[in-house]
Amino acid sequence: MATAGKVIKCKAAVAWEAGKPLSIEEVEVAPPQAMEVRVKILYTALCHTDVYFWEAKEEPLFHQFVGHLLRRAYIVESVGEGVTELVPGDHVLPVFTGECKDCAHCKSEESNLCDLLRINVDRGVMIGDGQSRFTINGKPIFHFVGTSTFSEYTVIHVGCLAKINPEAPLDKVCVLSCGISTGLGATLNVAKPKKGSTVAIFGLGAVGLAAMEGARMAGASRIIGVDLNPAKYEQAKKFGCTDFVNPKDHTKPVQEVLVEMTNGGVDRAVECTGHIDAMIAAFECVHDGWGVAVLVGVPHKEAVFKTYPMNFLNERTLKGTFFGNYKPRTDLPEVVEMYMRKELELEKFITHSVPFSQINTAFDLMLKGEGLRCIMRMDQ
Amino acid sequence: MATAGKVIKCKAAVAWEAGKPLSIEEVEVAPPQAMEVRVKILYTALCHTDVYFWEAKEEPLFHQFVGHLLRRAYIVESVGEGVTELVPGDHVLPVFTGECKDCAHCKSEESNLCDLLRINVDRGVMIGDGQSRFTINGKPIFHFVGTSTFSEYTVIHVGCLAKINPEAPLDKVCVLSCGISTGLGATLNVAKPKKGSTVAIFGLGAVGLAAMEGARMAGASRIIGVDLNPAKYEQAKKFGCTDFVNPKDHTKPVQEVLVEMTNGGVDRAVECTGHIDAMIAAFECVHDGWGVAVLVGVPHKEAVFKTYPMNFLNERTLKGTFFGNYKPRTDLPEVVEMYMRKELELEKFITHSVPFSQINTAFDLMLKGEGLRCIMRMDQ
Repeated sequence: MATAGKVIKCKAAVAWEAGKPLSIEEVEVAPPQAMEVRVKILYTALCHTDVYFWEAKEEPLFHQFVGHLLRRAYIVESVGEGVTELVPGDHVLPVFTGECKDCAHCKSEESNLCDLLRINVDRGVMIGDGQSRFTINGKPIFHFVGTSTFSEYTVIHVGCLAKINPEAPLDKVCVLSCGISTGLGATLNVAKPKKGSTVAIFGLGAVGLAAMEGARMAGASRIIGVDLNPAKYEQAKKFGCTDFVNPKDHTKPVQEVLVEMTNGGVDRAVECTGHIDAMIAAFECVHDGWGVAVLVGVPHKEAVFKTYPMNFLNERTLKGTFFGNYKPRTDLPEVVEMYMRKELELEKFITHSVPFSQINTAFDLMLKGEGLRCIMRMDQ
Repeated sequence: MATAGKVIKCKAAVAWEAGKPLSIEEVEVAPPQAMEVRVKILYTALCHTDVYFWEAKEEPLFHQFVGHLLRRAYIVESVGEGVTELVPGDHVLPVFTGECKDCAHCKSEESNLCDLLRINVDRGVMIGDGQSRFTINGKPIFHFVGTSTFSEYTVIHVGCLAKINPEAPLDKVCVLSCGISTGLGATLNVAKPKKGSTVAIFGLGAVGLAAMEGARMAGASRIIGVDLNPAKYEQAKKFGCTDFVNPKDHTKPVQEVLVEMTNGGVDRAVECTGHIDAMIAAFECVHDGWGVAVLVGVPHKEAVFKTYPMNFLNERTLKGTFFGNYKPRTDLPEVVEMYMRKELELEKFITHSVPFSQINTAFDLMLKGEGLRCIMRMDQ
């Protein structure tokens, strides 16, 4: 491309202060260095993690640049030294956690917790040289979580980019960069329900509904949604929900309710709220002998998981997962293909679409808990 | 056989009172009823569970008849109505937990917790008619844990008998009826270490050493034994132990010691003590991304397992197992074959042998923690 090797000036949404509306600024995006790729962003989206850090509930070095995470689709503009598997024009999905393909985790069949490129919300700079590729009037601003996608162009480590089928519609598959894959993979890769089994999903936000979509795809015959908000049931039906349990409707612990209604426990449970009581309930509601519970939601740091060890000894399994155990580069292309084969229904997750200039509307929707995913169109 | 259908009079060891020496008595053994098998016992052995109940630390209905559990080899004397898969003369291993082949657990590939014949220490009678098959001078005495093997003849539900290769030496394979299979299966069936991996075993008694034997058979390259008694290391070396850690030698928690000495954690851990701190340590010492911890030891009822949920979210797995996840009838014959193929070395577990008349010597050895398994020869 004509822009290769040159600084590109473009629009980006910048968070100058925690909790305040983002402002659209002109930023300069430097060319990619070794093992980096500069990409043009066509679609992006918000997730709760954006809102969480934007509200600065935890204070990392404050990423003045909320170029953040997740769910967007890119086209490669130019590549840095050493990048051999991507060329300008390739379609890619960027992921907030990477895959170097060289560390013990990447070499393990079981892990996706890459030692080099594992999610890091504090770094704010490129891993290669410790510098930012973004400036405003020459003054550096921080990247966020390795991707920084609230910008028309961004620079990303090649290990955080999954090359996908160029025929896949980017305004749909862009949602696969984050929570949707997290929930989907928690069920398909970790819980692995068998056809005809009973699955409980705790928390019916986007991640939980993606976990539910996985249960539907796996052929579960009974899918029990658990949420404190009864309004979630209607939407969940589209994802295969057959039963709904609101813990508030019962005096006994919800795990006991689930065990009773399933004649001994569910075959699989996936926990997507991050609340410690829900984590414990998700484990204790699985059937002895074969039940598997999978933890997805991230808890408060001080929360402690407690249970009687006999619950384990009666042959229950408890596992946690990160990003649905997907290795970003290796596995995401196949998830895109699941969508292309119409096995995975992504349209159900996309409830809103706004031009990039209305990014603060997307934040509002997320804050109000309205809808699931709001796509931002970068060309508008 | 000439005795079929008749009462057999024979010797048995009876526990008339908790904690007192057993006395050898003449008992009458009734013929087997529907789905039952009467077997002649050639070898039996003791395990800690015998001693535990004999000491009556928990008071079930006191089985005056400590015909108990485990590790013995039988020859079928006669079979009751409906028993089609065993005939007189078959060699069998009796197991304290059964397999009806008809319940949801038996039909699941993953569970061995048979609904009908799962271990029950309180029953003391046959499941079919609620009666005992043992009498002394016509007065019924209780069975124990479905097997009652401290007797020359006993009657057992067919679901608790594994038919084995008649060429297998009964004085060796008799140890497979209980703790040895429990430990072995915990590693081979549940932890499933890969060749070349690092495995930690907590507790180096017979069950822990059987778990270690499983790690050796699976080709683990580093096997770390953890025990409070340093004298256990020498014996453990025969089972493949390459490193020994005594938690008492360290000021920091043993899980931290293990994580440091293994560059991030062990690949698999198997907990065989039942102490809650060891359970927690076994889980927290496994590597993130792929580590699996397996709980075998039975804890105090009040003990609570506690850990930070992030330990799960970083892709660790915690599972419990019962009898090594072996389905007694389906799987034990193949464990016997492992021994016949010289893959599994059972001789290492058999440290003592006494005639049945010296059963109290066997109790003494167990109480003193001397040796691993003491075989009792019933013909003497």
